[in-house]
Amino acid sequence: MTVHRLAPEPGDFSYTFGVAEPALTIKPGDVVEVHTEDCFGGRVTARGQLPSEVVPFTELNPVSGPIAVAGAEPGDVLAVHFASIVPSRDYAISSLFPYFGTLSGTHETALLHAPLEEPVWWYEVDVNEWTATFRPTGGRGAPVVLPLDPMHGTVGVAPAGGEVRLVVTPSSHGGNMDTPEARAGHTLYLPVNVPGALLALGDGHARQGEGEITGTGLECAMDSVIVVDLIKGAGPLAWPRIESDTHLMSTGSIRPLEDAFRISQKDLVEWTSELAGLDLLDAYQLVSQAGLAPVANVCDPNYTMVAKLPKAVLGGAEAFGGIHARLRAAAADYLAANPKPGPRP
Amino acid sequence: MTVHRLAPEPGDFSYTFGVAEPALTIKPGDVVEVHTEDCFGGRVTARGQLPSEVVPFTELNPVSGPIAVAGAEPGDVLAVHFASIVPSRDYAISSLFPYFGTLSGTHETALLHAPLEEPVWWYEVDVNEWTATFRPTGGRGAPVVLPLDPMHGTVGVAPAGGEVRLVVTPSSHGGNMDTPEARAGHTLYLPVNVPGALLALGDGHARQGEGEITGTGLECAMDSVIVVDLIKGAGPLAWPRIESDTHLMSTGSIRPLEDAFRISQKDLVEWTSELAGLDLLDAYQLVSQAGLAPVANVCDPNYTMVAKLPKAVLGGAEAFGGIHARLRAAAADYLAANPKPGPRP
Amino acid sequence: MTVHRLAPEPGDFSYTFGVAEPALTIKPGDVVEVHTEDCFGGRVTARGQLPSEVVPFTELNPVSGPIAVAGAEPGDVLAVHFASIVPSRDYAISSLFPYFGTLSGTHETALLHAPLEEPVWWYEVDVNEWTATFRPTGGRGAPVVLPLDPMHGTVGVAPAGGEVRLVVTPSSHGGNMDTPEARAGHTLYLPVNVPGALLALGDGHARQGEGEITGTGLECAMDSVIVVDLIKGAGPLAWPRIESDTHLMSTGSIRPLEDAFRISQKDLVEWTSELAGLDLLDAYQLVSQAGLAPVANVCDPNYTMVAKLPKAVLGGAEAFGGIHARLRAAAADYLAANPKPGPRP
Amino acid sequence: MTVHRLAPEPGDFSYTFGVAEPALTIKPGDVVEVHTEDCFGGRVTARGQLPSEVVPFTELNPVSGPIAVAGAEPGDVLAVHFASIVPSRDYAISSLFPYFGTLSGTHETALLHAPLEEPVWWYEVDVNEWTATFRPTGGRGAPVVLPLDPMHGTVGVAPAGGEVRLVVTPSSHGGNMDTPEARAGHTLYLPVNVPGALLALGDGHARQGEGEITGTGLECAMDSVIVVDLIKGAGPLAWPRIESDTHLMSTGSIRPLEDAFRISQKDLVEWTSELAGLDLLDAYQLVSQAGLAPVANVCDPNYTMVAKLPKAVLGGAEAFGGIHARLRAAAADYLAANPKPGPRP
Repeated sequence: MTVHRLAPEPGDFSYTFGVAEPALTIKPGDVVEVHTEDCFGGRVTARGQLPSEVVPFTELNPVSGPIAVAGAEPGDVLAVHFASIVPSRDYAISSLFPYFGTLSGTHETALLHAPLEEPVWWYEVDVNEWTATFRPTGGRGAPVVLPLDPMHGTVGVAPAGGEVRLVVTPSSHGGNMDTPEARAGHTLYLPVNVPGALLALGDGHARQGEGEITGTGLECAMDSVIVVDLIKGAGPLAWPRIESDTHLMSTGSIRPLEDAFRISQKDLVEWTSELAGLDLLDAYQLVSQAGLAPVANVCDPNYTMVAKLPKAVLGGAEAFGGIHARLRAAAADYLAANPKPGPRP
Repeated sequence: MTVHRLAPEPGDFSYTFGVAEPALTIKPGDVVEVHTEDCFGGRVTARGQLPSEVVPFTELNPVSGPIAVAGAEPGDVLAVHFASIVPSRDYAISSLFPYFGTLSGTHETALLHAPLEEPVWWYEVDVNEWTATFRPTGGRGAPVVLPLDPMHGTVGVAPAGGEVRLVVTPSSHGGNMDTPEARAGHTLYLPVNVPGALLALGDGHARQGEGEITGTGLECAMDSVIVVDLIKGAGPLAWPRIESDTHLMSTGSIRPLEDAFRISQKDLVEWTSELAGLDLLDAYQLVSQAGLAPVANVCDPNYTMVAKLPKAVLGGAEAFGGIHARLRAAAADYLAANPKPGPRP
Repeated sequence: MTVHRLAPEPGDFSYTFGVAEPALTIKPGDVVEVHTEDCFGGRVTARGQLPSEVVPFTELNPVSGPIAVAGAEPGDVLAVHFASIVPSRDYAISSLFPYFGTLSGTHETALLHAPLEEPVWWYEVDVNEWTATFRPTGGRGAPVVLPLDPMHGTVGVAPAGGEVRLVVTPSSHGGNMDTPEARAGHTLYLPVNVPGALLALGDGHARQGEGEITGTGLECAMDSVIVVDLIKGAGPLAWPRIESDTHLMSTGSIRPLEDAFRISQKDLVEWTSELAGLDLLDAYQLVSQAGLAPVANVCDPNYTMVAKLPKAVLGGAEAFGGIHARLRAAAADYLAANPKPGPRP
Repeated sequence: MTVHRLAPEPGDFSYTFGVAEPALTIKPGDVVEVHTEDCFGGRVTARGQLPSEVVPFTELNPVSGPIAVAGAEPGDVLAVHFASIVPSRDYAISSLFPYFGTLSGTHETALLHAPLEEPVWWYEVDVNEWTATFRPTGGRGAPVVLPLDPMHGTVGVAPAGGEVRLVVTPSSHGGNMDTPEARAGHTLYLPVNVPGALLALGDGHARQGEGEITGTGLECAMDSVIVVDLIKGAGPLAWPRIESDTHLMSTGSIRPLEDAFRISQKDLVEWTSELAGLDLLDAYQLVSQAGLAPVANVCDPNYTMVAKLPKAVLGGAEAFGGIHARLRAAAADYLAANPKPGPRP
């Protein structure tokens, strides 16, 4: 097991997904310990600072990478297993950006309202207790202790067709999907669109509700460990997929929300049909009765939906040749040797 | 505890929500044992029948009721606690209606495609084992045994403003919301828009995935028990809400899906603000980090989203004066005396 | 030519479309001189009044009617020709209702913003010059003289299936479509869903831009003249249609806007196919290259789109047996005997 | 007046908007005679060929360029005046791409339907008569002679933030907006996001209806003449704008359609406020009553709406210092010396 370390200095972060010089090149099966900055680029350092004032718009949401995977070619599928995601600091920050968030007019849902206020919430993060504490800013109500559930909001590869996309916009290449399902113990499958795939990740959230309705989670820098592998020729993969020990998940990232829903559900129906050996309409029926549909984000330039099926209904069929279980085992080996805070996923 | 029984004969079902002669009048706190027909009006009785041929369009989705609640006045809130929902027959039916369902062109998303095929799935329902068995219709793949999770797809009251709405269209009066959260052990809160409220329900599903993507769940007649109560002056309630032992839920039923999402989230933020004594933006933040957002339906003339918050974050505050716990206890008393199949919720 | 007069007193207006006692019964081909109130019910009578304060929400948008048409049966098509639409007063009013309008958060697009301000614009209406004068309320900029182009925002019939709908919500029964195409010289085709059809109209605008983005046009009471006829057995008509001397138009009223667009375009494609004797895909092609697509409203509870085709591409085919030309001639006869202000349409 | 010529050979076309080596560098005020290929890259050359088979997906919609404009810097506005747009061949082609078009399931509105058929329509183009002739492919109905109204579906610049976008997706950098308003005699204003602006154009349509509902117009190669100028420091421009002799137009290109509508209307309101010296809400009111809202496309990965205001209501105010009139005059000079087919715009 080869273990790499990627810890970008200020100035070394990326702000787009696209073909670029790799920050690191690895082999399939390698482990990467990766440090990511928070969505503010670490620039919000003191209470009283307004993110919209201290962070240049073009430097929001930095990602660490790109990581080239040797041998990855268009048509392959990249498997990114999250072995561990641990907040780097003892605080996390959430805020309301002007004209951003589900319950605000935005640059896309363009209205004439003045922006909402821009409160900033500082959460105390305790990785030993595995909690984060919410404190109201308005002078009323009590603090609330919430369990940590760390995740990466942004994980993606270079898009197809020579496109270069801002990190903030999720699409078929992954990117800023902002789903809590990108948590430790889960495997994310991404399309390989260019040689080397060019994986990058960032935007850690100590936790986040479904929908990320304020537009921010508990934003924090992360020390994460990923195991990256390649499934040769298993693609092309139309949209990112996720696997946990118990569920298969398809994603769709687009506007409007019903199209994100349709894309994710259609992909899950097709995946189910293939794995369970069912006719397409039988798979449609099975997903219709057994599936879950948690919202990921309704705040980014594209919205993300997740379609989710219990693996128990698949009669033992394994996705992508059972790679999730193998990566899970590799992660367990790594973690046995390198213990990290947090519940063993 | 007064127990009523409502078991409509063919011809006695309702097909609209609106002011109409009550089928039953009850007092707040009464129990109603209610029989509901399946969404096909019980007309699909043999394999080989096509629902689109044997069920007149105007007789889809019959509801039992309306039930008038003595003393209910506009501005009150109606609490409907589902004590028990048990399939009446040993089968349930699911099918694809032409131009209906998430992954089909519809009368609203009007396209030029020919309709999808109309397969019909017969599920064997076993209320002792509490399972339903899916059998593929296409000749490939294996049967799948699924746990029962019975619910009512359609529960609503007379709309405001003198409107009369088809049962199939969910809106602020409730109706065909098709959420699995309308299950036994949960309490549904509905606005009272007219004297007596005029509650009606039907469209039982032995289970249903989130989104009801084929447009049908495991459709079956139900023998249900509800406890109905009134919270005087607690309204007006803009949209239906739901409470379980562990969660508060707000709903929104409209198109497009992002507006259903916005409505449900805004209502939950306002409810949280009120219960936890938080400023509105603090409540927005708390819901953003702790909330869940399961899809209800993306197939009906209006789509339904659910916004869901763990009650644990509310510091012990109780919704509507703790009525859920009282109705839960009343239901337990009833069920102790009148045991029903299914796990004790 | 039988001429009726319908001039409701306060208290005689309707606020829903649905089965109700007719205010007037006419025969096919009859003329009706109809007085309609403005959308405020005539309650805004002095500068400085805020519509949101002086008009009860339930008394917005009164309609005159219903008018029963003898012999109308479900499956027929009702033809409503606007012979003349003339403002009744020398002023018209426009305003911003709180949480209403394209560029505002609304009750459907539910956000956390405070409402926009509620300015009220009084336009001077001169029916001799056929102009209305806009005066800025903010103290900057010059008045603008605009040509009149009077229309009825709300024209509809009783819905199908026993539904009763608020006047404010356009749907397949017509209603508050708010299209400038409901102007003098045009014929509106509506489905007959119940015996007598039960036509009602109101919500006159001295003019309105496409989209009605503030949520109000130049709202004014109207003295209008319509010729109403029946096309037996020509339906069922899925959605309202409009005919002018030069164009055929289909409408769709629903949310989201792309579904309103799809419905209107599909209906126009099918209508073109039927009239021009083209295969459906050939009609799709012809409409794609020759069609226009003006927005009607993007402010009401349902949005309305119009799909519009020059009749010149139809090779002389006539819609509904040429009834538009006959009603146009009848209107000309009436107007010759009863001259009205405004350009001869 | 310096006149350039840009006539790319096969292999010299571009398929993305982004920073790239210029094909031509010009000075502000220069004229460019530009040849563009049709959206099929000229590969459909014989009846019976299916575009989906003979055109690789990655080679759809080639654009000619990029053209660098000397001195253009971020924050400037680029003015592109269409002096003349003339079909290069005596035919134009339209077709139904699988899973493309308003009335089809698409890759975004993902459904389970089989694709619609793929008919191909060959139009005879006569630039002397200025007509194109539609011939039905289905064996029924008569040919229809339509007037030419040539336009460029795709005109754009390099996006901001280092993004590179496929030519097919319109956004704030312009691109595949597919509006008939990009016709001869009109001036298109684009943001300058990178030094040199990097203008490119293509996708000529001999004509197109509003909405481009089949997904294709009368696709043809074009010989066009543009006059390109620079308005220093007039930006940043959020979205492309268009000016004709009679109207100002704002655009919005995004999904869903209501957001494209909101963006275009808000931009027009702000532009009107600035030009007419009106408070924002007064401008909102004026646009609401005097504005038009023609659909551009509802088929591309982003939909495009146009918001349109008669210049007559602006009291003589001139956009961008009257540059449209100056470019119009320069175009007239060029055309006097170099006559082209078509009506003098």
